[in-house]
Amino acid sequence: MRNLKIDARRLWDEIHETGKIGGTAKGGVRRLTLSDEDRQVRDWFAAKARSLGCTVSVDGVGNMFALRAGRDPNRLPIAMGSHLDTQPTGGKFDGILGVLAGVEVLQTLNDNNIETESPLLLINWTNEEGSRFSPAVMGSGAFTGALPLDEVLAKTDRDGISFSQAIDSIGYRGPDPVGNRPIAAYFELHIEQGPYLEAEGQTIGVVTLVQGIRWFNGTVKGQDAHAGTTPMHRRADAMLAFARLTDRIDTIARKHGPLAVATVGVVDVPSASINVVAGDVSFTVDIRDPDDAVLDQMEAEIRKAAQEIGGLNGTEIQLDCFWKAAPVPFDADCIASVRAAAEQSHYATRDCVSGASHDAAYMQGIVPSAMIFVPSQDGLSHNELEHSTLDHCGAGAQVLLDAVLNYDEKSRR
Amino acid sequence: MRNLKIDARRLWDEIHETGKIGGTAKGGVRRLTLSDEDRQVRDWFAAKARSLGCTVSVDGVGNMFALRAGRDPNRLPIAMGSHLDTQPTGGKFDGILGVLAGVEVLQTLNDNNIETESPLLLINWTNEEGSRFSPAVMGSGAFTGALPLDEVLAKTDRDGISFSQAIDSIGYRGPDPVGNRPIAAYFELHIEQGPYLEAEGQTIGVVTLVQGIRWFNGTVKGQDAHAGTTPMHRRADAMLAFARLTDRIDTIARKHGPLAVATVGVVDVPSASINVVAGDVSFTVDIRDPDDAVLDQMEAEIRKAAQEIGGLNGTEIQLDCFWKAAPVPFDADCIASVRAAAEQSHYATRDCVSGASHDAAYMQGIVPSAMIFVPSQDGLSHNELEHSTLDHCGAGAQVLLDAVLNYDEKSRR
Repeated sequence: MRNLKIDARRLWDEIHETGKIGGTAKGGVRRLTLSDEDRQVRDWFAAKARSLGCTVSVDGVGNMFALRAGRDPNRLPIAMGSHLDTQPTGGKFDGILGVLAGVEVLQTLNDNNIETESPLLLINWTNEEGSRFSPAVMGSGAFTGALPLDEVLAKTDRDGISFSQAIDSIGYRGPDPVGNRPIAAYFELHIEQGPYLEAEGQTIGVVTLVQGIRWFNGTVKGQDAHAGTTPMHRRADAMLAFARLTDRIDTIARKHGPLAVATVGVVDVPSASINVVAGDVSFTVDIRDPDDAVLDQMEAEIRKAAQEIGGLNGTEIQLDCFWKAAPVPFDADCIASVRAAAEQSHYATRDCVSGASHDAAYMQGIVPSAMIFVPSQDGLSHNELEHSTLDHCGAGAQVLLDAVLNYDEKSRR
Repeated sequence: MRNLKIDARRLWDEIHETGKIGGTAKGGVRRLTLSDEDRQVRDWFAAKARSLGCTVSVDGVGNMFALRAGRDPNRLPIAMGSHLDTQPTGGKFDGILGVLAGVEVLQTLNDNNIETESPLLLINWTNEEGSRFSPAVMGSGAFTGALPLDEVLAKTDRDGISFSQAIDSIGYRGPDPVGNRPIAAYFELHIEQGPYLEAEGQTIGVVTLVQGIRWFNGTVKGQDAHAGTTPMHRRADAMLAFARLTDRIDTIARKHGPLAVATVGVVDVPSASINVVAGDVSFTVDIRDPDDAVLDQMEAEIRKAAQEIGGLNGTEIQLDCFWKAAPVPFDADCIASVRAAAEQSHYATRDCVSGASHDAAYMQGIVPSAMIFVPSQDGLSHNELEHSTLDHCGAGAQVLLDAVLNYDEKSRR
């Protein structure tokens, strides 16, 4: 049995070396999609992959592919990947760990002169975060055909700069067609961004499923009124209706717990004034659960609550479901490769549901895929204080290496 | 007994003539303080007052004073007044009725060659609405010494233009010192902006009191978190705490009904995102009641609720009371003059509490004052659809005339 060990310290150093690109005073990273910081880290990644003997190619939306040849050039490559872009006040680990652990896997194989049966492919996806250009997981969405290419290129940021302009301005519109690249399987290492592994003292999460998500835009239509002269019983207060619905949405999520979550993240009152009863409120709702039937139920209950609450105070609440992603179960063979890899190193392991969406969820739509989680300190993510330990990062890279090798060996048989 | 009749049609025509200055497509008026529309209506007012034989003077914050001489130049003038500025999407009556009814009073006296014992003074206060420059009732606040002059001049609008720059740009910084102008009494006619007169079929509201007001800035401090990966029980959701407090504030106001009101009019989530549990929310609270003791109780209950709600979901709610206006009872003699005037014309009358603040509330702090209300259709105000009938506007002007004459006769005795 092979006994390859990745070098956790080398991985850790590279996380901190690249973390300087867009590094913030609080120890986080600001590396918005297709910004100059994104260009710098892409340049770093391309140079590093080439130094490891890979050929690097880039497609029309900037997705980067580092290919390490295998023994059998007729086999499809086994892929690893994640993303190097960050939230505006993001951390050093979200996405980055998955790409740099892939680099570490390639380095370890080189150091030990290992030739895999299949080629290996390490991918840096463009715009996973969706902060500058919405929606998120854009690069893998375009690659897998879920998002039409022309729509992606036409997206604009808040300053009116299009994706197309931005990608040319950093020179990362590559010649490869988007999506026309067969792959055998896809593995993604990521920090958990949640609390379970840490709370239960486990090192590796074997991700079996990305939970389903539904996003809603909501509006409440009431009647603007003078806050001083309008008696309580004459009001159609949109803010009050919004508040009651927000409270009910929380109750509905808890009722479907422990996995269901619901979040009212945005509220806007266009004509807000301290002495005006709000006539119009808009807001968003995000609901998630591993089971689509539970999402159906939650949605129905939220719609019923909205109707009841509006009826009680003379307002009308509308809910528009504008994004619906069904739960994505990962591939059994890929999951088995991850599980076996975690067992080989005797890591404490649990099965996980991914609360966030990831590039792997889109990839599972076209190739067998799986994900590996490592603990996030305090479950904190999308935050400059986001943290994972050197040991956990190393464990994740080790499992990524062994999962890929397990899959490679399986396909050899 | 005198039998002077104001000309309701003439008043109505002047309301509609001046309503063209800043007139909106929906029939409302947009005449922001110290804008060019404000200049135009001020020019109209000054010319009209001069055409009626008044001397017009302007003080250092743009308050305009039209003086009609009386028989006894040693007496202090009896004043009428209100404001010609409007909300951004305001109506044709709020404030405007009080000034133009004053014009109609002067015209009626001229038409009938009436010389009052005391001089009469008609005032157009600057920035009653407080929409462009905050706070509201600014001109009368400066006049009565409640607001320091240098603070008023330094206020800026959303574009960073100071009150000082704005007043010079329209040429309405007058030479009169602000506030150094003795007055015998002050009467203000205004639309009710509430539903009571219309609901009960009355024509004249004898306003006995302006209710007390307290304004709060609130903040909720929780923890930003990923909406997909943070279980419900691990959240410190500032939006949820805000929502629960808003609901409780409504309950507290109703408990102290029927007069108490409470409004959460503004909410802001600085880092709002559909997939982020909000860590920071700010909001405003406006509470009003005719009785300061009730306001004390309401404030205590709201603070207790904030503490409880924050404690339950791990957030911290702060409430800063940044404006506190005690209830203002009007002067008994002035109220009696209004009541007698309403009875003279056999108008159906009720005593009213003013839910809104008005320039008269500041004036009562330095001179005997009272207010007259006429019905607002559907209680609607701060709205382009704001409406009062020709008959009600006329009735208000008639009562204003007779109240002033009653007060003048009383002081003659």
